[in-house]
Amino acid sequence: MAKSPTVEDVARAAGVSRQTVSNVLNSPEIVREGTRERVRAAITQLGYAPSMAARRLRTQRSATIGIHLDPYAGGISGIVLDRFIHALTDRATPRGLRILVYAANDAEEELRRVRQLREGGEIDRIVLTGTYQGDPRADWLSEHGIPFVAFGRPWGEPGAGAAMGNPDRPWVDVDGAAGTRAATVHALDHGPRVAFLGWPTGSGTGDDRERGWREAMSVGSGERSDLRWTAVDTVAAAREVVEQELSAGAVDAIVCVSDTLAVGAHLAALHAGRADMPVVGFDNTPVAEALGISSVEQRPERVAEAVLDLLVAESGTHDGDWHRLIEPELIVRTREAS
Amino acid sequence: MAKSPTVEDVARAAGVSRQTVSNVLNSPEIVREGTRERVRAAITQLGYAPSMAARRLRTQRSATIGIHLDPYAGGISGIVLDRFIHALTDRATPRGLRILVYAANDAEEELRRVRQLREGGEIDRIVLTGTYQGDPRADWLSEHGIPFVAFGRPWGEPGAGAAMGNPDRPWVDVDGAAGTRAATVHALDHGPRVAFLGWPTGSGTGDDRERGWREAMSVGSGERSDLRWTAVDTVAAAREVVEQELSAGAVDAIVCVSDTLAVGAHLAALHAGRADMPVVGFDNTPVAEALGISSVEQRPERVAEAVLDLLVAESGTHDGDWHRLIEPELIVRTREAS
Repeated sequence: MAKSPTVEDVARAAGVSRQTVSNVLNSPEIVREGTRERVRAAITQLGYAPSMAARRLRTQRSATIGIHLDPYAGGISGIVLDRFIHALTDRATPRGLRILVYAANDAEEELRRVRQLREGGEIDRIVLTGTYQGDPRADWLSEHGIPFVAFGRPWGEPGAGAAMGNPDRPWVDVDGAAGTRAATVHALDHGPRVAFLGWPTGSGTGDDRERGWREAMSVGSGERSDLRWTAVDTVAAAREVVEQELSAGAVDAIVCVSDTLAVGAHLAALHAGRADMPVVGFDNTPVAEALGISSVEQRPERVAEAVLDLLVAESGTHDGDWHRLIEPELIVRTREAS
Repeated sequence: MAKSPTVEDVARAAGVSRQTVSNVLNSPEIVREGTRERVRAAITQLGYAPSMAARRLRTQRSATIGIHLDPYAGGISGIVLDRFIHALTDRATPRGLRILVYAANDAEEELRRVRQLREGGEIDRIVLTGTYQGDPRADWLSEHGIPFVAFGRPWGEPGAGAAMGNPDRPWVDVDGAAGTRAATVHALDHGPRVAFLGWPTGSGTGDDRERGWREAMSVGSGERSDLRWTAVDTVAAAREVVEQELSAGAVDAIVCVSDTLAVGAHLAALHAGRADMPVVGFDNTPVAEALGISSVEQRPERVAEAVLDLLVAESGTHDGDWHRLIEPELIVRTREAS
């Protein structure tokens, strides 16, 4: 195996100075995005290990990020979190950051693990996922001085939806409402009666996605609360609700809170001879792709990039924006009649 | 947060001696499976961190396992590897083992990463995934004295299919042929003309799965090479092939090499008015579940358990079986007509 590449090799390959390579490794937020990407591509391509930087990081602010992996629960949308982990790993490696994954069955067990790993010097910062109302983890991490960034807003906290705020509670999230707004605007091209198939009210994520539909409808055809349907997150529940609704009244399209519900809506539409009716899901999973169902893509790769940017930023050097909302992307597909 | 649990707490909760707890942590292969499971459940439940054991492991044979995470490639069956990573993490944590994930775009880059992580004392053993013909990684790891276990057989090596063998090349794999054999036996209940929809010949995994179909057919209705169809691993390719074949001749059921091909076969069957015809996939993905398609479940949780058993076993204490074939399980579902 050839000699390990040096920082000079990376600088030459990227066409930048050594200082710029060093900045990308240590203060990426001060480097222009295009340059940053070029340097990281060179690091990946050459397999450069920024050992000195990594060592400095490890002793001062270390270089290993802990992230909890939920037990596999099955289901269609679990893939989004897995994509996020893949993307985080992919982007952490060229930055000289390590990713250590650990298991835990609940928040308390997770915090015990974090404490053990931190005390053992095995991790020095944390990525939180699966945030929920009343989540004790952010408070605990703040109290113990463990830097972290959450993928997901602290739903239920005052001002949780604000774009700027408390650097003690940094988070990155996907703008769910923007996704369903785009989906609804697209669906309105096919007629004014666009239904929303959501989860029962009360989940931060689900309510946020419903809001996008409401906002687009109020601009388009006006309030249509009779077109707000709910189902728990299973294909069978969605199919049953949509079959009933399609036999009860006229609908032009259905925007769904998840791909799971979209698959149920799709099967119900086929059953009703409405293979042409637009159905839009959320999460852009392999299932939606396989069945030709349009869906809102969360872009977990952009979430991962933003999480890492916040995770390595220091309060002193950062511009103060500790919360990032990633704009999702509507993927439009034409369903084939089966 | 309460005081950290001790080994006594674990022993009491599991109803075993301290020595047994210690054995589970350090020499799990000498403890009966039921006892081992009970102790591990107690460790997980109490959140016990075997810090002494972990420290001993780290200094002597360390306690951090490195595993490569491929970039997310989309597709239906990628979920199997993610389930494996979840299961590995879930089972490593109570054993006091850490999982460090890293990215790499090819085998050479992966080996560079492994060398860096190993030299930095950050990992001490490796789980290989995605083995393939001519894979240089196992040789390299053996030459450099880095312990590893592969998920996947070294296809193409002489004796790769053997159940016992070289402790320098330990692997755990799923018995694909057993899975398709069970699927074919099930399908033969519906008639003698069971087709196999596989990938083009040449992939170790695909050829192994085809063999299971051939073996079951030779016992059942005899050789039917005309019912051996192929498609690349996309829904559209499978659908096209199956639509052609269904219009050309009589078939009673279709066993597929993957859930991706099974979705295509399912859509083709629906299109041909054959919603009742059995279609069996492989990997038991959320897509198969959502569409009610029978599928062969790889049991990645058992693979993870076996990988960890081999990874912590020492040549001296182990019984000599360094290769494990996990029996998959056929999940039978009744497809609903859409």
